[in-house]
Amino acid sequence: MRQIDVNSDLGEGFGPYRIAPDAELMPLITSANIACGGHAGDPEVMCETIDLAAENSVRIGAHIGFPDRAGFGRRPMPMTHRELELMTVTQLGALQGVAHLRGRTLTHFNFHGALGNLSFADADVAKTLLRAVKAVDPALTFIGLPDTEATRAAEALGLPVVRSFLADRGYSAPGRLAPRGIEGALIHDPEAVRERVAETLATGMLRLTTGEMVPIEVDSVLVHSDTPSALELAHAIRAGIADSGCGIAPYAA
Amino acid sequence: MRQIDVNSDLGEGFGPYRIAPDAELMPLITSANIACGGHAGDPEVMCETIDLAAENSVRIGAHIGFPDRAGFGRRPMPMTHRELELMTVTQLGALQGVAHLRGRTLTHFNFHGALGNLSFADADVAKTLLRAVKAVDPALTFIGLPDTEATRAAEALGLPVVRSFLADRGYSAPGRLAPRGIEGALIHDPEAVRERVAETLATGMLRLTTGEMVPIEVDSVLVHSDTPSALELAHAIRAGIADSGCGIAPYAA
Amino acid sequence: MRQIDVNSDLGEGFGPYRIAPDAELMPLITSANIACGGHAGDPEVMCETIDLAAENSVRIGAHIGFPDRAGFGRRPMPMTHRELELMTVTQLGALQGVAHLRGRTLTHFNFHGALGNLSFADADVAKTLLRAVKAVDPALTFIGLPDTEATRAAEALGLPVVRSFLADRGYSAPGRLAPRGIEGALIHDPEAVRERVAETLATGMLRLTTGEMVPIEVDSVLVHSDTPSALELAHAIRAGIADSGCGIAPYAA
Amino acid sequence: MRQIDVNSDLGEGFGPYRIAPDAELMPLITSANIACGGHAGDPEVMCETIDLAAENSVRIGAHIGFPDRAGFGRRPMPMTHRELELMTVTQLGALQGVAHLRGRTLTHFNFHGALGNLSFADADVAKTLLRAVKAVDPALTFIGLPDTEATRAAEALGLPVVRSFLADRGYSAPGRLAPRGIEGALIHDPEAVRERVAETLATGMLRLTTGEMVPIEVDSVLVHSDTPSALELAHAIRAGIADSGCGIAPYAA
Repeated sequence: MRQIDVNSDLGEGFGPYRIAPDAELMPLITSANIACGGHAGDPEVMCETIDLAAENSVRIGAHIGFPDRAGFGRRPMPMTHRELELMTVTQLGALQGVAHLRGRTLTHFNFHGALGNLSFADADVAKTLLRAVKAVDPALTFIGLPDTEATRAAEALGLPVVRSFLADRGYSAPGRLAPRGIEGALIHDPEAVRERVAETLATGMLRLTTGEMVPIEVDSVLVHSDTPSALELAHAIRAGIADSGCGIAPYAA
Repeated sequence: MRQIDVNSDLGEGFGPYRIAPDAELMPLITSANIACGGHAGDPEVMCETIDLAAENSVRIGAHIGFPDRAGFGRRPMPMTHRELELMTVTQLGALQGVAHLRGRTLTHFNFHGALGNLSFADADVAKTLLRAVKAVDPALTFIGLPDTEATRAAEALGLPVVRSFLADRGYSAPGRLAPRGIEGALIHDPEAVRERVAETLATGMLRLTTGEMVPIEVDSVLVHSDTPSALELAHAIRAGIADSGCGIAPYAA
Repeated sequence: MRQIDVNSDLGEGFGPYRIAPDAELMPLITSANIACGGHAGDPEVMCETIDLAAENSVRIGAHIGFPDRAGFGRRPMPMTHRELELMTVTQLGALQGVAHLRGRTLTHFNFHGALGNLSFADADVAKTLLRAVKAVDPALTFIGLPDTEATRAAEALGLPVVRSFLADRGYSAPGRLAPRGIEGALIHDPEAVRERVAETLATGMLRLTTGEMVPIEVDSVLVHSDTPSALELAHAIRAGIADSGCGIAPYAA
Repeated sequence: MRQIDVNSDLGEGFGPYRIAPDAELMPLITSANIACGGHAGDPEVMCETIDLAAENSVRIGAHIGFPDRAGFGRRPMPMTHRELELMTVTQLGALQGVAHLRGRTLTHFNFHGALGNLSFADADVAKTLLRAVKAVDPALTFIGLPDTEATRAAEALGLPVVRSFLADRGYSAPGRLAPRGIEGALIHDPEAVRERVAETLATGMLRLTTGEMVPIEVDSVLVHSDTPSALELAHAIRAGIADSGCGIAPYAA
């Protein structure tokens, strides 16, 4: 039976703030992308999230983002390649420190928000980011959007790749999310998400916002955590995976 | 020939700011305690400092401090033991990330400012901090003040210890620096520092501010970097080591 | 008819984070203490909160706290008197800037968390803080706990004072809240809060945790915003004010 | 006798860091643009700088910049117009708070680094920024580069304008600095700066990097503070003003 991973961006609180129902989401996923104190997260939140993942046998990874708490990593920051690689390794290292303290091991990573978008679109940035991660730990798996520069860079560097599907987002082309303004960019109806997951996994074909069907390979499905309906979304995704005849299990690591 | 290490707190800049003549000091020392982005330092400064150390064959270590840039880590922060250990591992991890990126290895650590003072005086805090470091990397050497709780905790945990001597500071008792207000707390004259280093190393006895002589073991001498006369101080310390008949070499690692 | 003000600490979000149901609370109160970017709040949140207050004809004031977002201003910070006064005027000035931009005027202020506690207990700190506020705007009203150093300092400086009652907290003595650990320190039952408000306003006497009754003067009642039951608490306080035969109206300014 | 103002960007330290010889520069200038805690500066540094200006009878103003200490306000930040205006009024308000505490009054303002460049080139941004300042204090003078959108916006809003000349920078066109890469963009030789100031003031004509002469109006000359030769530059500018037959005095306010 084919197994599909379910990943989500968690640990995005800070100080007194929490932003998503992490404790409720954790039992519904198999791998957690944990904020590293850049766009969100702090040592206490990282630790809480790592512990919660351990209790739920969820794999843990670093979710690296621009160091801009006020903008939650959603604003592009002009950075040199040197700044990008140093940002990457300090965030990854900080989360590794917490993991070691709690006797756990990071097994994956990916990039958040504006940094993620940049890594999808810019081959040089992608190479810089991925190389920096590899310098710190070459065994880490990249959970990324297939058909993007980031995933191509990970493959070129020989890093394991888990191809993630954003089931509640429209795609305008392979590896390209439709901009938020346009029709079909966001899929709010859980039933529609469920069907989309089931169809995509069962057929290996993705329906673009243009109506065109294109081949897609999916190893994991992303649950957006910072929407009011995150739990419903998680259940819809899990149901869609079951509908497709696949099982749910963490990626191999 | 007995060899003495010379250590200094470097990498204490931030963004556009630099605070000490790191490039001039680096050739005069054998181990650098590098700020980790808590009290000072940022990814770029960490990287600069690690590279500078590599060029000068200087050992590198993590200098961990309270996350208070405005106060430069000199103000005690009320923190739980959990916060203390998480602060420690995230700072250590961040610096390790940069070291890995540059193909270098951290070999030691110590604590800065108000956190250092707390680790000297409070056995529980010392244990918490040292255990946290050990969880991340049990091979790291602690460069610490002998006859303090921090050094005792390191020894109890089986961590390698390098005993550091603060040659330009008066001691009121073994392991206890004289408070800055009192006579003899700060030794400004380089010639006096030179003689103090030479005497202490040659005799194994430390002259307290009370005039009393007490036994002391010294493996390394600290060069304070953030005084206007840091370079002069470094030369005085090196001369004092030579006067004592010892050589200058990095601690064993 | 005697009129009682209802005040609450709002605008305590930051970046993507919100912490209390400000939009629901605003119609239930008459004066808002707005975080100024120290312990919480940022320019956007300040502006949102000022606008929300304007829509609800709620008075606005500065809620000044230690500049420690991660600790939410609940950890005492060791600061000199100079640092305290500069912290006060920069936070107050920042909020005034936003108020001016939106064509509104601040009419009160108070102190948050650990800074508030310090201002209650330490006469010198209280004087420093209150003098700093007066230097920026001598017309501002201090909403404070009666029988504390802060309120005494405000009176001594000739600042208008609104005496605030913390209806859901036990008092161990006049002007002194019972520490959170002890029995009766926190009053969770809304019905009990309602009765406490009604009794206190009607009789002018406060029941201490010891059972003793002491005189108290009340011009305003505080609604804690960062408890899960904040809205219920607000309704209980309003009902208690009505029960006492008083009306609800903003303090005179 | 025609009087020329001399302005400089001061107060750009933070916490333990200082970046320019403010104490030496202050007696050589007539108006200080003070960082407000955005790109640089903190409450203590603002206060130091305001006091130093008072001792030297130097006018004080707000130097507003992107809130990016690590990047020193030199990196453009993507911000909405709302964020721009809120950033402006909170920084201005914070500095006003300190000025009030010290019994002083701000009389001017301008914009730093990447924000300044944006305000020169983008008419909408310029309008937003200038309107925000006017909402807080319509009496403030804008010290700006003539022939830029910022200066045009200030004039359109009826704000007093002091036209500043960057004597050590090449201009490619009126109101347009030559990019740092190109020949003549930076004028390092103090003697050349002196002659350039004298010629420009005496003739009312500016020599562009193309060799062309264009009319320019100058009320003030800027001393860049963060170059190693800031003091020399200040002396050269003062000498150039004297050579031109003008006096040195603060702008009218």
